[in-house]
Amino acid sequence: MVHKTRNIELTQVTQWEDGNATRVQDYLAAEEPLEMRAGRRSLGVTLRTPGNDEELVAGFIFTEGVISRREDLVAVRLPADGDRERNVARVTLAPKVRLLAGGAARRFSAGSACGVCGKASIDQLRRRGLKRPQSETPFDPEILCQLPEKLREAQQVFGRTGGLHAAALFSAQGKMLVLREDIGRHNAVDKVIGWALLSGRVPLSNHVLLVSGRGGFEIVQKSIAAGIPLLASVSAPSSLAVQLARELGLTLIGFLRGRRFVIYSEEDRIASAAI
Amino acid sequence: MVHKTRNIELTQVTQWEDGNATRVQDYLAAEEPLEMRAGRRSLGVTLRTPGNDEELVAGFIFTEGVISRREDLVAVRLPADGDRERNVARVTLAPKVRLLAGGAARRFSAGSACGVCGKASIDQLRRRGLKRPQSETPFDPEILCQLPEKLREAQQVFGRTGGLHAAALFSAQGKMLVLREDIGRHNAVDKVIGWALLSGRVPLSNHVLLVSGRGGFEIVQKSIAAGIPLLASVSAPSSLAVQLARELGLTLIGFLRGRRFVIYSEEDRIASAAI
Repeated sequence: MVHKTRNIELTQVTQWEDGNATRVQDYLAAEEPLEMRAGRRSLGVTLRTPGNDEELVAGFIFTEGVISRREDLVAVRLPADGDRERNVARVTLAPKVRLLAGGAARRFSAGSACGVCGKASIDQLRRRGLKRPQSETPFDPEILCQLPEKLREAQQVFGRTGGLHAAALFSAQGKMLVLREDIGRHNAVDKVIGWALLSGRVPLSNHVLLVSGRGGFEIVQKSIAAGIPLLASVSAPSSLAVQLARELGLTLIGFLRGRRFVIYSEEDRIASAAI
Repeated sequence: MVHKTRNIELTQVTQWEDGNATRVQDYLAAEEPLEMRAGRRSLGVTLRTPGNDEELVAGFIFTEGVISRREDLVAVRLPADGDRERNVARVTLAPKVRLLAGGAARRFSAGSACGVCGKASIDQLRRRGLKRPQSETPFDPEILCQLPEKLREAQQVFGRTGGLHAAALFSAQGKMLVLREDIGRHNAVDKVIGWALLSGRVPLSNHVLLVSGRGGFEIVQKSIAAGIPLLASVSAPSSLAVQLARELGLTLIGFLRGRRFVIYSEEDRIASAAI
C-alpha cells in the first residue's frame, strides 16, 4: 500500500479488459480491526474503516446495550500513532455501569462481524499452517468472464427475494461444480467448501470460487484454507483482503463484469496478464 | 409467516408505487441461528439460511481451523423438528482432535457474523427494555422516495472504491443530518447512532435511517435501541429482521427505488399507506 488517507488506500493492480492487461493505481476501502476495552474487559472487536472512531465506539456500546444513555459514557481514548496497542480504544464508563459477565461478552464479540481480528491474525493463519494454494496451469481470462453469467443463471432463489448471497465453485475449464446461497456471504462459502470436504475434493487446487458479493478478509481466509488458488467477485475487495491474498498467495479478482476484471494479487496465474 | 419452504418464507407486505398502496404476498430469505457444539463446547454460532446445514457445519469448522482434514469430522447431527434445542447442530470429532481453549472459542463465535442469536434473543432485547420507537406524524412517501438519491449524491468514497456501505439519518422532512460510510454495514450504523448519542439527539423519534445495503436483524435491533421509528433500505430484509420489526414496532421499508418501495411492518406510519 503506497498511499494512505483516512479511509481509502491506493495500490497497484492489474486491469484486464478485452484481452489487454494494464498496470494501474486503484483505490481500496481501508479496513482495520478496532477492539473496545473498559479496563481489562473487552467490550467487542470490529473490523471497520478508520474514521469517526469515537462515534463508532459510542454507537456500538449503546446499541449493544453496554450503556443505556449518554451519561454512562465518560470518555473514549483512541489509539495514537505509535501506540503499542494501535487497534485498541479505551472506554471509561460511569462508575455505576455494571458490565454483564459471560454471555454478554460473547454477544459483543459476535456482534462485531469480525471473523479474525485483522493484520495480527495473518500471523495466526500462518501458524495454523495455511499454505499457498496450488494451480498447475494459468487460468483462461475468457473462461473467467463467463462465470458471473453462469452463476446468475443458476441462482433461482435470489431472483425471488433479492436477499441471498451466492458462492459457486468452478473447475479451471469453467464447469460449475456446486452453487450455494445464504443470507450470510460466509455461510454460502462455508457450504461450498463443506460440500467439497465431505465429498473428498479438498484441497481444491485448480479451482475457482466465485462469490456474488464482496471478497472480504474472511472469504480470502476460507478460500486459502480450502486450497483454492483463485477467488473472484463481482464487487470490490477490502484492503485487508488484498493484503492477506498477497501474503498467502491467492489470486484475488474483483469487479468481474462483462469482459473486464481487476487482479489484485498473484496475476501470474492469469494467462497473458503477467506484464 | 404463513408459508415456509426450505429457504424462503412467504409473508404479507404493503407495496407502495406512485401513490398507490397494495397488500401483496412477498418472499423473504429465511434466516435462522445455528449453533455448532462438540460435547459441551460451543464451536460457533451463525445466522444462516436453512438448507445444506451439514455442509455449513463441515465447512465452518474446517475453514476456521477446528479440524484440518475430512477424517477429523466423524458426524454431524442436525436438529430434528420438535427438538428442544432446535437450533443446535451436534458435532462428533475424531478423538485426537484437540479443541483450543479461550482465544479460539472467541474467534469462532466472532466468525459467525451473528450479532444476536436469532429468535431467542428477541426476548433478550425485550428484557433490555427496548421500547417501541415514537413518531408524531405519518411519514410522507414522496419524501421517502427522494432519500436514496440524496444518499448517493453525498457518497463520495463509494464512487471511488465501490466497497463501502453507507448509513444516513434524515429528519421526517427529508433533511440529511449525518452520513457515515464503512466497510461493515453495522459500523456505518453504529457511527451514525454514536454521532447522535454524543450530540444529545437520542432517542431519535421522528427520524428515518437509510442504509445502502440490506436491512438485517442487527440493523433493526440497533435502530430500535436508538428510538428510530423508520428504517429504510434499497434492498431486501431477512425474515428475522421483519419479525423483530413487527414485534418491537419499527416501520421497516425495503426496495426503496425510484417511486416504489415495500413496507414490511407498521405501515400506519406511512401516510395513506394504511389500507
